[in-house]
Amino acid sequence: MNQTPLGPGSEFDIIRRILKDAASPGPQVALASGDDCALINKGDGGYLAVSVDLSVQDAHFVIEWGTPELIGERAVRAAHSDVAAMAAQPFGTLVSLNVPGKSGPSLAERVAIGCRAAAEQLGAPLIGGDLSHGGASLVVDVVALGVVEKPLLRSGARPGDEIWVTGELGAAAAAVRAWKAGESPTNRWRRAFWEPGSRIGEAVFLAEAGASAAIDLSDGLLADAAHIAAASGVGIEIDWDAVPAAENVETELALAGGEDYELLVAVPGGILNDEKIADFASFFGIPLSRVGRTVSGSGVRVFRDDAEVELDSMGFDHFVDG
Amino acid sequence: MNQTPLGPGSEFDIIRRILKDAASPGPQVALASGDDCALINKGDGGYLAVSVDLSVQDAHFVIEWGTPELIGERAVRAAHSDVAAMAAQPFGTLVSLNVPGKSGPSLAERVAIGCRAAAEQLGAPLIGGDLSHGGASLVVDVVALGVVEKPLLRSGARPGDEIWVTGELGAAAAAVRAWKAGESPTNRWRRAFWEPGSRIGEAVFLAEAGASAAIDLSDGLLADAAHIAAASGVGIEIDWDAVPAAENVETELALAGGEDYELLVAVPGGILNDEKIADFASFFGIPLSRVGRTVSGSGVRVFRDDAEVELDSMGFDHFVDG
Repeated sequence: MNQTPLGPGSEFDIIRRILKDAASPGPQVALASGDDCALINKGDGGYLAVSVDLSVQDAHFVIEWGTPELIGERAVRAAHSDVAAMAAQPFGTLVSLNVPGKSGPSLAERVAIGCRAAAEQLGAPLIGGDLSHGGASLVVDVVALGVVEKPLLRSGARPGDEIWVTGELGAAAAAVRAWKAGESPTNRWRRAFWEPGSRIGEAVFLAEAGASAAIDLSDGLLADAAHIAAASGVGIEIDWDAVPAAENVETELALAGGEDYELLVAVPGGILNDEKIADFASFFGIPLSRVGRTVSGSGVRVFRDDAEVELDSMGFDHFVDG
Repeated sequence: MNQTPLGPGSEFDIIRRILKDAASPGPQVALASGDDCALINKGDGGYLAVSVDLSVQDAHFVIEWGTPELIGERAVRAAHSDVAAMAAQPFGTLVSLNVPGKSGPSLAERVAIGCRAAAEQLGAPLIGGDLSHGGASLVVDVVALGVVEKPLLRSGARPGDEIWVTGELGAAAAAVRAWKAGESPTNRWRRAFWEPGSRIGEAVFLAEAGASAAIDLSDGLLADAAHIAAASGVGIEIDWDAVPAAENVETELALAGGEDYELLVAVPGGILNDEKIADFASFFGIPLSRVGRTVSGSGVRVFRDDAEVELDSMGFDHFVDG
């Protein structure tokens, strides 16, 4: 294991240029960039999973959309979603927090209390961080730490696997779209944005069932499926009508909208039988939907009524739409 | 080991309030908040040291003071200074980077290239991160990873130890003061701010010599000595005339100015003899200065010609001077 290839997108073009000719890390590092987490050899056969996830005011959230506590909670949940996506168990959280120069210490404290609450809910208490004051932006950067014996990677999918997603998609993007239009999101949409699930148990269940690859849906189903396709060296076909769009959300947004923090997994055909699907629903209280398949080739294609859907202008790109 | 007490300061008051009644982490965590790094049990008897260090435009730096590459280099060096302060060996770096909405991708790329160069110089190549675009601030948050068998903590000092510092102090603060006054810093000051040393080998040398405690000087000699005092349950006395102020820097600034990223260590009396001091100077090309001692009691006091110096208005506090 070392670097894992990324899917298309201008953000990932920059990362590719930065990492071109980069030095290889030493033997402590089992897996470097390109997956949801970096993996560090623990020395006892297991791995430490490390991820970092940045939330910047007006880039990732607008303060007035929620509360300082929710900003902290969301940042921690989003970061640990990367740990979950490798079927790792979160155990610790570090938080870097900066509050703008014009704000007082109570803003820092309220965001941090939100971070702490979410971290403890996830079984990953705060174990360090950094606090500062100045500049123009509220910034929360979260380091998520987990442990795992058998990590679930982006690169393990093989042609003929099924593609499944947890939960419902598009509600967080629908909330953002509503706020940007000056409208009020539904409570369901608002909750999807501010309190995303971290699919920790779900990922372990799917890994134990035999999943071959996984990613968390932070960039959107299409963009994240493209990462799995690039990492695994396969193509992915998605069935438009199978996409589990959240209530009152159109399928386009469920495909392209980011920040759902659900899981997309590849699973060898037939493993997720009716019994497993029923178990999943009763254990976790969310649906599990088969949305497509892997094929020989590359890239992601979407089919509706046997016709390929034109994907131009879909997908989420931080340097285009961000 | 678990939480380590922090010294005084409004930033640390907030951290204390946040961590009051916080959940204890699980058995993976050997040392949680309050030291330079969190320590994770590796499973082979050693520790993984993890620290995170945030740099936000106009809070920690002003873009026009340097170049995008220098912003990246400085952020990575500052983060690994925490790893060095535990006598750990850096091996990996993750970088979260956000560039403001009005800037193009080349700013992100130039900062990241600076991060990559510094990370590779330190033997800690980039192994992950996060890149985004939007909002008002350039943000670089760096996760520094190291390994260590016998960590050097803040909490090991005992009454009767000597206090030593590496290098010269105050030049980075002198550069910031000059820039804020619209003046041009000397090259020496400028370099101290943008290219701080990460005292990796120096810390290992001092740990092997028998140092009892260490911290890196990010908040300033007085504030960081206060952390050692609080963590170790001792008082610290500093000799004004022994403080190694950098060229053209007054002693006040060498005591109070932050961001030197030199080391302050406590060492049992007599261990650092003339031979060791000469070895240190010839190995590392920087001075090692005895600046004071630990005593029974608490807090930090400064003496000049046997009289105690009034410390009001000294020390660096992000929520006061920041």
